[in-house]
Amino acid sequence: MAGAIFFGEVFMPTLPPIEYADASPEVRAVYDDIMATRKVEWINNFWKVLANHPDNLKRTWESIKRIMAPGALDARTKEMIYLAVSVSNGCEYCTASHTAAARKAGMTDAMLGELLAVVGMASETNRLANGYRIEVDERFK
Amino acid sequence: MAGAIFFGEVFMPTLPPIEYADASPEVRAVYDDIMATRKVEWINNFWKVLANHPDNLKRTWESIKRIMAPGALDARTKEMIYLAVSVSNGCEYCTASHTAAARKAGMTDAMLGELLAVVGMASETNRLANGYRIEVDERFK
Amino acid sequence: MAGAIFFGEVFMPTLPPIEYADASPEVRAVYDDIMATRKVEWINNFWKVLANHPDNLKRTWESIKRIMAPGALDARTKEMIYLAVSVSNGCEYCTASHTAAARKAGMTDAMLGELLAVVGMASETNRLANGYRIEVDERFK
Amino acid sequence: MAGAIFFGEVFMPTLPPIEYADASPEVRAVYDDIMATRKVEWINNFWKVLANHPDNLKRTWESIKRIMAPGALDARTKEMIYLAVSVSNGCEYCTASHTAAARKAGMTDAMLGELLAVVGMASETNRLANGYRIEVDERFK
Amino acid sequence: MAGAIFFGEVFMPTLPPIEYADASPEVRAVYDDIMATRKVEWINNFWKVLANHPDNLKRTWESIKRIMAPGALDARTKEMIYLAVSVSNGCEYCTASHTAAARKAGMTDAMLGELLAVVGMASETNRLANGYRIEVDERFK
Amino acid sequence: MAGAIFFGEVFMPTLPPIEYADASPEVRAVYDDIMATRKVEWINNFWKVLANHPDNLKRTWESIKRIMAPGALDARTKEMIYLAVSVSNGCEYCTASHTAAARKAGMTDAMLGELLAVVGMASETNRLANGYRIEVDERFK
Repeated sequence: MAGAIFFGEVFMPTLPPIEYADASPEVRAVYDDIMATRKVEWINNFWKVLANHPDNLKRTWESIKRIMAPGALDARTKEMIYLAVSVSNGCEYCTASHTAAARKAGMTDAMLGELLAVVGMASETNRLANGYRIEVDERFK
Repeated sequence: MAGAIFFGEVFMPTLPPIEYADASPEVRAVYDDIMATRKVEWINNFWKVLANHPDNLKRTWESIKRIMAPGALDARTKEMIYLAVSVSNGCEYCTASHTAAARKAGMTDAMLGELLAVVGMASETNRLANGYRIEVDERFK
Repeated sequence: MAGAIFFGEVFMPTLPPIEYADASPEVRAVYDDIMATRKVEWINNFWKVLANHPDNLKRTWESIKRIMAPGALDARTKEMIYLAVSVSNGCEYCTASHTAAARKAGMTDAMLGELLAVVGMASETNRLANGYRIEVDERFK
Repeated sequence: MAGAIFFGEVFMPTLPPIEYADASPEVRAVYDDIMATRKVEWINNFWKVLANHPDNLKRTWESIKRIMAPGALDARTKEMIYLAVSVSNGCEYCTASHTAAARKAGMTDAMLGELLAVVGMASETNRLANGYRIEVDERFK
Repeated sequence: MAGAIFFGEVFMPTLPPIEYADASPEVRAVYDDIMATRKVEWINNFWKVLANHPDNLKRTWESIKRIMAPGALDARTKEMIYLAVSVSNGCEYCTASHTAAARKAGMTDAMLGELLAVVGMASETNRLANGYRIEVDERFK
Repeated sequence: MAGAIFFGEVFMPTLPPIEYADASPEVRAVYDDIMATRKVEWINNFWKVLANHPDNLKRTWESIKRIMAPGALDARTKEMIYLAVSVSNGCEYCTASHTAAARKAGMTDAMLGELLAVVGMASETNRLANGYRIEVDERFK
């Protein structure tokens, strides 16, 4: 069957994580900043896979670092919002990693229960509002 | 053209809001509880349209009342999570009404800006994590 | 300000509906089949806009005609599932048109209330299952 | 490396299922009602994980019990709508569990095939309606 | 415990892939056309599971074949759009299979990086536009 | 009814667009860069509303400018991917503005028709893949 083309033999859909030891100086600089900023000593898969495209890695990290820094909202509230959105968007990776991040930022088990209750309730009423095709009240405009 | 069937003449897709004056005692009791709980003197369209199906009205209100009461999370944080989810789910009505509710609960303009930044950022990385098909780290499992 | 390029003057983002009187024979044939199949004497905007790309019009209509014909499921059940999905996907046009279509196929007001309750409930538990990252039971695999 | 903080060692993102033997009387009462109502002798993971927050368990079960009881729509139709929504929302757990539940309620293999065809078709036209930015017909308003 | 009903013992939620050797002539004809059109010598799981409902298999394949053929857009651009949508919809299977298909059609690693950057950015600004409830400019209408 | 609290009187959910004439130097600098980069002489509502939070305006513009610049993918392909994602996410504003932007970058009417056909088809098969719970083929992993 010479000449046959098989998808799987030729193309690799998933990109491998780039380990620190194998990373370019540009990528290592981002890794170092992630670990310093978060006070951790490891890099999670999200960044190691993004490192296949250093521009995506650098830009995404810089945006996250800026957005997640405490400001008018504290770090825990930001992490809980991040988690709520990740659950709503159905992202398993982000749900797992931001549950961990929110806990690290002080989210207790009771808070997680209430957060998920709000996420579920909002999703229910979002559908009801769309399903009933409810007009926005003048006072909300 | 006798006998022709036209959608628009026969069927009404959108249900009308039920005003207090026209509501059954069962519906009025829910309206009264909404106004008392929220310390407002009007009912927004969401509840007035749900009132077409009193069981949906009653059940939804009872769940929301229980879930949104302050607990491990304060009311403002809950409203902000509700808003973040409504934006993520693309519900215009709920985005409008819960922006108002979150402001009423103390969300400042600066907080709104940070909330939306987190919602946007989470949506971006949610797609990146799915697009790169990133495996959940062992430590997050 | 000669030479300035303005979006709005040059580009038209929205395509106009193609009325029967202005349609090509190919498009008219589809319009005729829609009216005959549905026993109506008008064409709704969805088809009139799709007619800008006759291949999209024809292919979409042929698929819908085949899929929505009564089979193991009756027409009303199919229309209600169509409506539930349109609400879940946040499509306002389809929610409006398929509420009308489901009513025409026999959906009563009480059925609509129960349908929306199920849609809302499912959306709530979908988020809870993802948020809690619940493993699929062996018996469901 | 004393003092280093590692996500994985300290935080547990996923909550464990609560088995009947380890459950509080409050949780057991819900489990008993689930088994009695559904005429089964086991509890699936969804409820066992929700039991980490007994209020979420109790409220969710009570709503589902009320909503899924036969009314204007029979149990099979309700389960099929639940399944269609779960597929649309991309919830793997709920797709698996409600495929099983719908089959138990009488959904045949042919019905499943037609249900999925409708779900797919609706998703396609939902996007076309949004992509073409089609205005809702006057008759549907 | 005679008479007890267990979900898992009685109902099979997931349908098995239909292998070529076990397929009906109708299904084999579709498989043959897929392999001939794509110049491959195997059938991926998507089609083998759809084959449980031959009408779904045939209709879906015929639509895809027509839509994905080069036209005003070349095959690579079409595959990249398909991939971007699959990522946005959170479909793991389709993300994996259409990453492979897009690579086969000529998408380089650098193109994938830019594609995912655009997908992420669009998702971010989609949420910002909805969250800020921004009115469509007159010029875009 | 002194002392009554009304949502609508006190809270403004929607933020006003900031016109060039009223903008701070920081915001004007971004507006100037947008107009210079895009070779237009007006600012669309998206940026004018984001300007309420100058940090969101600046960060979002800088990311978009970098991501949408031609690279391994040309500007037209990037705009079409942006549009496909906006349609999939159900963002009306972004669908309108990026249809205009893609047309400006060279997307013809025929290309738009094929783009929407691919978006619709992908959404259909995304749901089928999830609904049938199809396992990713070994060759795609």
